[in-house]
Amino acid sequence: MLAVVKATPAAGAEVREVAVPGFGATDVLVRVKVASVCGTDLHIYKWDQWAQGRIHPPLIPGHEFCGHVAAVGREVTTVKEGDFVSAEMHVACGKCFQCRTGEQHICQNVRIIGVDADGAFAEYVVIPESNIWKLDSSIPEEYASILDPLGNAVHTVLAGEIAGRTIAVTGCGPIGLFSIAVARACGATKVFAIEVNQHRRKIAEQMKADFVLDPAQQDVFSIVMDHTGGAGVDVVAEMAGKTEAIRLGFRILRRGGRMSMLGIPSRPVELNLADDIIFKGAVVQGINGRLMYKTWYQMTSLVAAGKLDLHPVITDRMPMKSFSQGMKRLQSGEASKILLYPNGTKASRP
Amino acid sequence: MLAVVKATPAAGAEVREVAVPGFGATDVLVRVKVASVCGTDLHIYKWDQWAQGRIHPPLIPGHEFCGHVAAVGREVTTVKEGDFVSAEMHVACGKCFQCRTGEQHICQNVRIIGVDADGAFAEYVVIPESNIWKLDSSIPEEYASILDPLGNAVHTVLAGEIAGRTIAVTGCGPIGLFSIAVARACGATKVFAIEVNQHRRKIAEQMKADFVLDPAQQDVFSIVMDHTGGAGVDVVAEMAGKTEAIRLGFRILRRGGRMSMLGIPSRPVELNLADDIIFKGAVVQGINGRLMYKTWYQMTSLVAAGKLDLHPVITDRMPMKSFSQGMKRLQSGEASKILLYPNGTKASRP
Amino acid sequence: MLAVVKATPAAGAEVREVAVPGFGATDVLVRVKVASVCGTDLHIYKWDQWAQGRIHPPLIPGHEFCGHVAAVGREVTTVKEGDFVSAEMHVACGKCFQCRTGEQHICQNVRIIGVDADGAFAEYVVIPESNIWKLDSSIPEEYASILDPLGNAVHTVLAGEIAGRTIAVTGCGPIGLFSIAVARACGATKVFAIEVNQHRRKIAEQMKADFVLDPAQQDVFSIVMDHTGGAGVDVVAEMAGKTEAIRLGFRILRRGGRMSMLGIPSRPVELNLADDIIFKGAVVQGINGRLMYKTWYQMTSLVAAGKLDLHPVITDRMPMKSFSQGMKRLQSGEASKILLYPNGTKASRP
Amino acid sequence: MLAVVKATPAAGAEVREVAVPGFGATDVLVRVKVASVCGTDLHIYKWDQWAQGRIHPPLIPGHEFCGHVAAVGREVTTVKEGDFVSAEMHVACGKCFQCRTGEQHICQNVRIIGVDADGAFAEYVVIPESNIWKLDSSIPEEYASILDPLGNAVHTVLAGEIAGRTIAVTGCGPIGLFSIAVARACGATKVFAIEVNQHRRKIAEQMKADFVLDPAQQDVFSIVMDHTGGAGVDVVAEMAGKTEAIRLGFRILRRGGRMSMLGIPSRPVELNLADDIIFKGAVVQGINGRLMYKTWYQMTSLVAAGKLDLHPVITDRMPMKSFSQGMKRLQSGEASKILLYPNGTKASRP
Repeated sequence: MLAVVKATPAAGAEVREVAVPGFGATDVLVRVKVASVCGTDLHIYKWDQWAQGRIHPPLIPGHEFCGHVAAVGREVTTVKEGDFVSAEMHVACGKCFQCRTGEQHICQNVRIIGVDADGAFAEYVVIPESNIWKLDSSIPEEYASILDPLGNAVHTVLAGEIAGRTIAVTGCGPIGLFSIAVARACGATKVFAIEVNQHRRKIAEQMKADFVLDPAQQDVFSIVMDHTGGAGVDVVAEMAGKTEAIRLGFRILRRGGRMSMLGIPSRPVELNLADDIIFKGAVVQGINGRLMYKTWYQMTSLVAAGKLDLHPVITDRMPMKSFSQGMKRLQSGEASKILLYPNGTKASRP
Repeated sequence: MLAVVKATPAAGAEVREVAVPGFGATDVLVRVKVASVCGTDLHIYKWDQWAQGRIHPPLIPGHEFCGHVAAVGREVTTVKEGDFVSAEMHVACGKCFQCRTGEQHICQNVRIIGVDADGAFAEYVVIPESNIWKLDSSIPEEYASILDPLGNAVHTVLAGEIAGRTIAVTGCGPIGLFSIAVARACGATKVFAIEVNQHRRKIAEQMKADFVLDPAQQDVFSIVMDHTGGAGVDVVAEMAGKTEAIRLGFRILRRGGRMSMLGIPSRPVELNLADDIIFKGAVVQGINGRLMYKTWYQMTSLVAAGKLDLHPVITDRMPMKSFSQGMKRLQSGEASKILLYPNGTKASRP
Repeated sequence: MLAVVKATPAAGAEVREVAVPGFGATDVLVRVKVASVCGTDLHIYKWDQWAQGRIHPPLIPGHEFCGHVAAVGREVTTVKEGDFVSAEMHVACGKCFQCRTGEQHICQNVRIIGVDADGAFAEYVVIPESNIWKLDSSIPEEYASILDPLGNAVHTVLAGEIAGRTIAVTGCGPIGLFSIAVARACGATKVFAIEVNQHRRKIAEQMKADFVLDPAQQDVFSIVMDHTGGAGVDVVAEMAGKTEAIRLGFRILRRGGRMSMLGIPSRPVELNLADDIIFKGAVVQGINGRLMYKTWYQMTSLVAAGKLDLHPVITDRMPMKSFSQGMKRLQSGEASKILLYPNGTKASRP
Repeated sequence: MLAVVKATPAAGAEVREVAVPGFGATDVLVRVKVASVCGTDLHIYKWDQWAQGRIHPPLIPGHEFCGHVAAVGREVTTVKEGDFVSAEMHVACGKCFQCRTGEQHICQNVRIIGVDADGAFAEYVVIPESNIWKLDSSIPEEYASILDPLGNAVHTVLAGEIAGRTIAVTGCGPIGLFSIAVARACGATKVFAIEVNQHRRKIAEQMKADFVLDPAQQDVFSIVMDHTGGAGVDVVAEMAGKTEAIRLGFRILRRGGRMSMLGIPSRPVELNLADDIIFKGAVVQGINGRLMYKTWYQMTSLVAAGKLDLHPVITDRMPMKSFSQGMKRLQSGEASKILLYPNGTKASRP
C-alpha cells in the first residue's frame, strides 16, 4: 500500500509503497478514505526539538482520518467489514488510576497512533476495537476525517458552562476555528476570536465569530471590556500556546472566569499569578485530547444534528501523494485544515 | 390608575380604578408597558383550592411584566426615571441559610409580588430595587414582559448539561414551549415535545422541536427509544405536573439521566422509585423560580444575542381592561401566552 | 470444593460439594478467605418475588468476599498467585453508552456475580481480571470482605458535599450503619440515624451517630428541626426502602438539600412531589452499586488510613457450612453483618 | 478607646487613644474581645511596596477578631446587644455581576475592613450588619478570633473533593496549618506538609500531618511519589506564594489533580504550562477570601462539632498594647498565630 513514511531522524518524509499492516484478534483494519493533517504532523515533518525527543523512525504519521472497515480480528464484535468509522488515536492502558476512574484521556501510559505507532497517512491503518468510533451515515466524510481536532474543540468549550456566556478564543488554528462553531452552537452569546494571522482571521469571520480581533493592531483588552460591561469574558479557550496570547487571555478573563488551555507553549511562560488567577478567583483547566468517549458522543451528535458548519476551515484537499506540497501550504500560514486522499479519490465539496 | 383587582374571596376579578401605590426609600415605581398572564393568575381568577389557601384579597395579581421607571426611592442608585426594566418577583428575605449561600430562589421566607403583594396587572407597580432587572434596548418589549416564565425554562434546561444532549419536554404550556427554544439554542441535538393538546403541539412545531408527540395517540416510549439508540433521553424537562406525564418522563429517561421537574402536581404521585430512579442512577431536580440572578444574566444574554425565537408562544395581545376575556381564552386551551397592555398601547408585532 | 448452592426454584439452599470452577484467559481464580452475607442473599434464600424473577438455579450466591489469588488466566497481568484481593461483582459490558462514558455502575447489560453467575459462597470463585481489586496488607481481612456494601455507603455519602454538613441516615442495616462511619470520617457535623429496630439502633450508637432516633416512638421531624436551626438536614441517605422512611426523609430534608436513595422499595411509593422536591429545590439521586472504580479508591484509602471503625456492624462470624443458621440470624433482626469462612478458618477479631 | 494606629506612610504603628467610632443605621458596633494578627498586618506595619500602594493612613488595621455587640443601628434586626460575634471583613458591593451571582468573595468593588477602612485592632470596631457572623456559645473565643484565616483554609480545602484523597500543603503559615486540620477532618487520607521553616514544621507535626517535609533537605518529589503509588497527590493547597513552592506543587500533583492557590506571589512566576497544567489535565483554582457565606456555615459547623484542633497554631497571646512586640515575634519566624486582647483581658488557654 502507499503510505507517508518518516524514514529517518531528519527533516522531510517520503510517500512510498509499504506492506499492508497485520492485525491482532482485537484489532480492526480500516481502509482510509480521508485523512487530515495536524500541526503535530508538521512538527514531525520538520523534525523539530519535540519530534526528535518523541518520534522513533521509521513511522507512518497521521492521526486524523475516516474510512471503512476492511477486516476485523476474530474477537471483534462491535464493527464489521464495510462499516464507516473514525477512531480515537490515544490508546489508553486501561489499568492506571486515571483509566480506572473515567479519565483515560490523561492515562499515565498513553500510546498515540500516528506518533508512537504507525498512523493513518496510508491506504490502511490498524486500530484496536476499543478505540474505533462507528459513524452514522449522517456524518459527512470530510467532517468524519477531522473528528480528532473537532473533539479537542468540543472538549475545551464544553469543559464548563458555555450557554449564555461570552468566550474569547485566543489563536485561530483549526481547533480555535472549530471552537468558534462549537461555542456558537452551544449557546455562547458573544464570541471574540483573537488571531494575528490574517488568513486565519478571515476564516474566523466565516465561522461567524461576533468579533474578530488582531492583537497586533487592535486594543483587544479595551474592546473586550467595552462589550462585556467592563467585566471581561466568562471563558477563554486558549488555542495559541504563545506567551502573549496566554497573558492577554488572562487579562480579559472576568473574575471567577474559566481559562481552558489547549495550546502547547514550547517554553515556560511567566505569569502574574496574583492578579491573573488568585485574586481573580479564576479556574484554569489543562485540556488534553478528548474525553473517552463522552466528547465523541457530544461531537457526533452535534454534527449529525447539523449544528456545526465547519467547511470554511477545510482549505485544501489533495491526494496523499502530494503530502510534501501540503506541508508547504501549512508552513505558508495560508492553509488551515488540509485533507489527504490516500486511496486516490478526492471528494468533491458537498 | 386602572388595575385588575381580586376584590373578594370568590371566583372572578374586576378591572377598576385604584390609587397609584406609594413606595419606600429602596423601592422603584414602574409604569407597566406590557404584562403577561401566567397559569397562576388563572388559579387566582378561578379561586381554586390553592388560591383559597394562599391569596388574601384584595390583591392586584400579575407577576410578569416590563415597563419604564416612573420614580425611585431616595436610596435607589442603580436605576433612574425612564429606564426600561423588568423584575424578579420573588422577593427573598436575604437572611436565611438559603439566601446567604446563593440560593435565594428557595428562600425560606419568600414573598411573591402579584401573589403575596400587589402585582403588575396595573398601570403602575412597586418593586424593591434589589429585584429590578435593567434591560438593554436590544430586548424587545414583548420578550421583556415574559422573562419570568422564560427564566423558568432557562433555569430548568440549564440546570445541567444540555449541549450535545437529547431532551424531552413533557407538557407544552408556555414554559415548556420556551424550553424547546432554549434547549435548541444551547446545543440540544434532539428535542422531543410531548403534549396532549393539539393547539400546544402546533406551537411546539413552530418552535422547531425535532419530534412533536401526542401521548394519547402515539407510543411515545417506542418513538423515543428508536431515536436514542434504545437508551432514552439524556434530559427530561417536566413541565406538565400531571401523573401520567411524570411517569412517562421517568420511563423515557436514560440510565444516569437528568429529570428536571418544574410542573406542579396538584396531588401526590405514585412512582416506581426502584426502576425509575434508584437502579437507573437518575438525578431528579426540583426547579423553583429562577436563579437570582444567574438565570437573568443567561436569559437576557441569549435574548440579546438573538438566539431565541419566542414569537409563536405569544398568541394573544389585548388591552388590560379585557382581562376577563383573556381568562376565557386561557381556559379554552387555545391561547398560550397572553400579553396585556395596562396603559392602552397595544404593541404591534415586531 | 464446598459451596452454598441454590439448587432449585424454591426456598432454602444447601451446602455441598461441587467442582472447582474453570476459568478463562482473562479470569482470576480466587480462594475465598471470608465472604459476607447481604440482604440480597436472604431474598434468594427465601425465594421471594424478586428472586423468582431474577435467579436461575442452580446458583452459588455470594457477592461480598476477600481471598487470595489461586491461579490466573494466561492474559492476566495485574495480579499473580498469592495476592490478597476483593472484587467488584458488577461486571459491566464495556460497550454501552454508560460504560463508554465512565458510568459502568449503571451499565445497560450488567451481569452480577453471585446473582447472575456463580458467586463467592464457596471455597473458590472466578472473577474477570477487570473486576479484581488488589488489596494492600493494611486492609484487615474482615473489612476486605465487606467492601461491596461499604462501597455502597461511600458512593451514597460522597455523591455530593458532606464536609461541614448535616446528614440523616434513614434505615440502619449494614449499609446505613457504614454510612454513619463514612459521613463522620468525611466531615459531617451532625449525623442523625433513624431506625425502628432496636438492635440496629444500638449499633448506630456504637457507630457514634450524634442522634439515634426511633421514628415509631419519637417525633423525628421536630428533633431534626430543633438541631438544624429549623432548616432541616443538608443530606438524607435513604437506606430503608420503606415508604414511611422515604416520606420522612423528604420532610426533614432542607430546601436545596440532597436526597441520595439506595434502599430499594418493593412497591411504588406515593410522594408529594410539589412540596418535597419541586418547591424545595431538592436534588434526588438514585444510587446504584459503586463507581467503577472511583469509589474503590476512596474506600480503600479511607480504610487504610484508619478513618473507619466498622467493627460494631460485624455481629456474627461462622463457618460457611452454617449458612442456614446465618439466614435465621438475619431473619431474627438481631444480626447485622454476618461473615462466613468457606475454608474453615474463622478469623479472631482484631 | 485604645487602638493600633498606622498614623503615617512609613514603617511602624502606634498604640494610642482615639475616639470610639460612630455607626450608621445598618451598622453594628462590636466591643472586641480577641483580635488576631495576619501577615497582611505585618506588611502594613513594615510599609512594604504592597502597603504603600494600597493603604491610606491614618488607619486602624486588624481584620481577624471576635467580640460582643455593644450597640446596633436602628435598622439592624439580626443581632442585639450582648451577642457574641465575628465578621466577614470583605464588604461586597452587592451590585456587580459577581455579587449578583453568588460570588461576592470576588466582588469587583470589594472594600476590606482593616485595610480600606478602620479595623479590629481597637477596643471597638464597626461592621455592617450584612457582614456580622453571629456565633454560638459552643465556639471557643480563641477560635472565634481566627475564623477569617480558618475560612481561607476551609475555602481552599473544600473547593473540590477531599474525602478519600491525598493532599499536599505547600507552605505552613497559619492558613497552611489550618488546612492540615481541615483536610484531616474532612476525610483526606494522606496529608503532606511541606515547609522550610523548622518552627512551622514542628507545628505541622502537632497538627498531625502524615508527612512533614523540608524541601531544602529532602527529596519531596520522590517521597510523595513513593507514598502515592507513583501518581502524585490528588490535591495541592498552595499556601506559600513562593516560586519554588508553586513549581514543586505542580510537579507532585497527579494527572487530573487540583491545585488550589491561595498564597500570593510578590512577583511573576515562570511555569511550565505544557507539562504542569495542559498535558496533565490539571485544574488550577485561584482562591480568594471565603465564600459568603457558605464557608462560614461549613467552618462554624466543623468547629462546633469539635472536628478541628487548632491550638498548636496559636503561639502567642498578649495585650493589644504590646502590638510592636507581636510584630517582632512574627518577623522572627518563631510565632505563628498571635492573639491580641484590646480590652486587657487575656484569655487563659482552654
